[in-house]
Amino acid sequence: MTAQFFYRRDLDFLLYEVLNVERFCECSRYTAHDRASFDAVLDAASAVAVEQFAPHAARSDANEPTFDGTRVHLIPEIKTALSVFVNAGLMAGTFDEQFGGLQLPVTIGQAMSAMFYSANISTAGYPMLTMGAANLLATFGTPDQKNTYVRPMIAGRWFGTMCLSEPQAGSSLADITTKATPSTEGDYLITGTKMWISGGEHDLTENIIHLVLAKIPGSPPGVKGISLFIVPKFRVNPDGSLGARNGVELAGLNHKMGYRGTVNTVLNFGERDECRGLLIGEPNKGLSYMFHMMNEARIGVGLGATMCGYAGYLASLAYARDRRQGRPASAKDPTSPQVPIIEHADIRRLLLTQKCYVEGALALELYCASLVDEQRTESASQRLKVVNLLLDILTPIAKSWPSEFCLEANKHAIQIFGGYGYTRDFPVERLYRDNRLNAIHEGTHGIQGLDLLGRKVVMENGAAFQALEIEISQTIQSAGRVASLEEFAVALQAAWARTVALTRALIDARVQYPQTALADAGVYLDMFGHVVIAWMWLRQALVAAATTPAYDSDRAFYKGKLAACRFFFRRELPKTEAQARLLSSLDDTALTLEEAGF
Amino acid sequence: MTAQFFYRRDLDFLLYEVLNVERFCECSRYTAHDRASFDAVLDAASAVAVEQFAPHAARSDANEPTFDGTRVHLIPEIKTALSVFVNAGLMAGTFDEQFGGLQLPVTIGQAMSAMFYSANISTAGYPMLTMGAANLLATFGTPDQKNTYVRPMIAGRWFGTMCLSEPQAGSSLADITTKATPSTEGDYLITGTKMWISGGEHDLTENIIHLVLAKIPGSPPGVKGISLFIVPKFRVNPDGSLGARNGVELAGLNHKMGYRGTVNTVLNFGERDECRGLLIGEPNKGLSYMFHMMNEARIGVGLGATMCGYAGYLASLAYARDRRQGRPASAKDPTSPQVPIIEHADIRRLLLTQKCYVEGALALELYCASLVDEQRTESASQRLKVVNLLLDILTPIAKSWPSEFCLEANKHAIQIFGGYGYTRDFPVERLYRDNRLNAIHEGTHGIQGLDLLGRKVVMENGAAFQALEIEISQTIQSAGRVASLEEFAVALQAAWARTVALTRALIDARVQYPQTALADAGVYLDMFGHVVIAWMWLRQALVAAATTPAYDSDRAFYKGKLAACRFFFRRELPKTEAQARLLSSLDDTALTLEEAGF
Repeated sequence: MTAQFFYRRDLDFLLYEVLNVERFCECSRYTAHDRASFDAVLDAASAVAVEQFAPHAARSDANEPTFDGTRVHLIPEIKTALSVFVNAGLMAGTFDEQFGGLQLPVTIGQAMSAMFYSANISTAGYPMLTMGAANLLATFGTPDQKNTYVRPMIAGRWFGTMCLSEPQAGSSLADITTKATPSTEGDYLITGTKMWISGGEHDLTENIIHLVLAKIPGSPPGVKGISLFIVPKFRVNPDGSLGARNGVELAGLNHKMGYRGTVNTVLNFGERDECRGLLIGEPNKGLSYMFHMMNEARIGVGLGATMCGYAGYLASLAYARDRRQGRPASAKDPTSPQVPIIEHADIRRLLLTQKCYVEGALALELYCASLVDEQRTESASQRLKVVNLLLDILTPIAKSWPSEFCLEANKHAIQIFGGYGYTRDFPVERLYRDNRLNAIHEGTHGIQGLDLLGRKVVMENGAAFQALEIEISQTIQSAGRVASLEEFAVALQAAWARTVALTRALIDARVQYPQTALADAGVYLDMFGHVVIAWMWLRQALVAAATTPAYDSDRAFYKGKLAACRFFFRRELPKTEAQARLLSSLDDTALTLEEAGF
Repeated sequence: MTAQFFYRRDLDFLLYEVLNVERFCECSRYTAHDRASFDAVLDAASAVAVEQFAPHAARSDANEPTFDGTRVHLIPEIKTALSVFVNAGLMAGTFDEQFGGLQLPVTIGQAMSAMFYSANISTAGYPMLTMGAANLLATFGTPDQKNTYVRPMIAGRWFGTMCLSEPQAGSSLADITTKATPSTEGDYLITGTKMWISGGEHDLTENIIHLVLAKIPGSPPGVKGISLFIVPKFRVNPDGSLGARNGVELAGLNHKMGYRGTVNTVLNFGERDECRGLLIGEPNKGLSYMFHMMNEARIGVGLGATMCGYAGYLASLAYARDRRQGRPASAKDPTSPQVPIIEHADIRRLLLTQKCYVEGALALELYCASLVDEQRTESASQRLKVVNLLLDILTPIAKSWPSEFCLEANKHAIQIFGGYGYTRDFPVERLYRDNRLNAIHEGTHGIQGLDLLGRKVVMENGAAFQALEIEISQTIQSAGRVASLEEFAVALQAAWARTVALTRALIDARVQYPQTALADAGVYLDMFGHVVIAWMWLRQALVAAATTPAYDSDRAFYKGKLAACRFFFRRELPKTEAQARLLSSLDDTALTLEEAGF
């Protein structure tokens, strides 16, 4: 069965040809693995995604979770799919062997995640959240906490959540009011309300482990007084068995535009019954623990956005090859047969636009994942510092760029289907709805823009920016030596030089115009993202241009890569010029308009 | 009660200050009217939109029409709202007095439609379709047909539909196969299947009048052999009373992403029972009749897209003024109170982007409506020719630009609401879903692009293009004389000159590269649209700059108009440079890529 929502050949291309993920097998952490073991888990993941996740995506969307006042009801296919997922060992993929994990490279783990996101992002949400929570506990928990919580989570017996937002504090975590009062027994009594909690209540697993941000009375105001707690749905006895119900209760479900299969909840803590939580790490450091894990969570969101777009691209490509409608301008004779719509210029434009967005974004997500693997394996402190800096500066882009442009891809996929694309008989409208969330959760597009322009490009005197410059310059140099890629090397060089000059100008402007210089951080993010994706295309083109294809299908594959690269450089990268001009003009029209004038 | 989905002050500004719609009262057709009568019908429409249409928009979305095998069920609020609409005389607005109409200017009629679209586009669909069908019959029907059909439609006793598409023929009407065989009784027997028929079946009215494109056996192949027929659900006796059920049957409902309250159907004609139809006009001229009415239908679609965007803008504006979250960069003290999010730079950018899209688009739609009024009133043949040409060239833009950019506005509205915007508790996600249809129906974005670049700019040796140039130049000249607007006059002049040069180059290129020169017609349309909307902003700015506001609120209103104009010129119009460069490069990357390379 051919999967219609991800493209294994492209994953293999990125993993083995572009990123050379096999190199990690030489590091002690990954020494148990080789290409054969990678392929085996990718095959297993592919089968589960295709056979268990994809088939109920539409039904899950049409039958969102309900709450009868006592229980949350999900369609049964979700539980079945997740059991197969867990039993195949997929939850354990990237975790350390000491926790029962397979200790796979994160790059391979993200490639597997890509398959699940594309097949059914709503069902994939549950294990992805659990892996994130387990990863946090594995990093910051006490040995006891690790023993008690991480293993059952990786084993899929307990699922996890992240509880950050509150009704009055979405993007502004400084304003959370959930309280954690020390008890006489060494744990904390949690009281408050959390909002937008995905996976907050269900019967999929024996227990749910909430990781909850809260403030200990007397702690400093704002983000410096936030601590992080383990709050289980059922209390956990010292031997790991389940005790009484903890006082965390479902207050209600949120009803979303998309992503409907992932139950999204409002949770009350300690409203009726006592709600007990365990402190993770030290008091008042909760946000830093959470943010330490954010890099991976944000790459996960970016990957999810990418794969919603990717699934839409492949669906519309299959439709365009199959659907006959109209005739080319050169053969308008109405008695001639209609042609597949892939022969129409506008359809080809919409297809190649999608391709250059989704494949470019996937290249970025897997590149970021490979940086995480470098973090986990690098022994040279200098390279490790570079890798950390690269991840710091690329994370807001990896999170946001696909949320914007792979959503645009989904819009084009609908357009290719025409009226059919607007119906629920085809997946493209669902993918468009699902994907709209990704610019909102895990830090909005605006927040990511501020993170990039206000923090990441200036951090450590621009060290992250410079680290990225070195990486990009290497690609430019390599491409400059390949005749067919020279024009792109020149274009990327110019775009990067423009980005450098603009960034300096904006940093300088912050002295005199602190507000205006940051006001268009969202535009800066989009622009920077386009430059980074152009770089990703040039990296792919370098491989495609240097490879002698072994098969005919491979020949077409590499030609497609080179065409998509050219398409991006000719059509997308030039958009950054107007953005750079706008940004350097420090236009304050929106900032200075009186409120009554909107 | 303040309406949250349209802005009466802006409608008044466009109608009376920018378009001076009162001037039409001097023409014999509209002599019965004056500003007072305009205001009276606008007030009446406003009340019906706010009180009858808006309240059930969310419920209608959540409870789409169902078919039990016998009847189609709609929520009862739709019928109630439409009764009030009809009883208020709103269906009759722009129709001739001879049919029982109010003979209002089309510009006023479209301003009223704007209110209904913004309040509830799904419910508004029924009367808008009926008015379109009635208008066609009033123009091309025989006296008998007019008498029999137009009056009950305007009276709201019968509703109408347009039946063009078929399952195998969406955009390609040349390939319709519905047959109309002459009967011995002078009418025709219709057989075939029609797809995407809005309002195709319901119990809202006593009868439904389908206008059906079909081919008479022996007629020429393709679009030159298409005729147009009246096909009533219930046959109509010579005295206007209803006879037996006609053989048009509901085959099924389409289940859409949005626009859910408008029932959308697949209809079978003559499958089980005889289906009788009456020819409209002459055989084989059906498509030209249909297209004659298309201008108004397409402006209606553009207006609908505009008002979905407009409603989203106003909802997000109200939310941004109300919702407190975070603090400005200059006052990060977490013990200070949170500020309304309209104080954040990124929110202001998203708001002003929406404003310049939706108000710019509304200006274009009402301008086009005023051209229709000129068509109906102009006696000088030279000006009439100009007006016809202007409508010809502007219609694809008026249809498509808002479908693209007011959808983008809806995306921004969701972003301002954050997570809340992604839930069905607020209207913005529904508006985003509703609006996604508008780039598809009544000719897709790609079709409109080909219409503009392939047909409209070259028609009559470029006469339409030149007519538009004269209009735009007049605005540029006027603005050039106002110091505060001079920079925009210069920018529009440059953008127009670029458009002229590019258009010539593309027309020339068609000789040697017929496919490539038209391949990016969709990009051309977007670019051309941006230039036209810039023109619309300069027209509005001219009025705003010249007016001494009488009230404080007016002062802010005009400042807002000037700010939105500046915003559009500084941020949107410059995007056309890269588009023009791309278009003139005749990039054929997508066109030449082998199919297996996608």
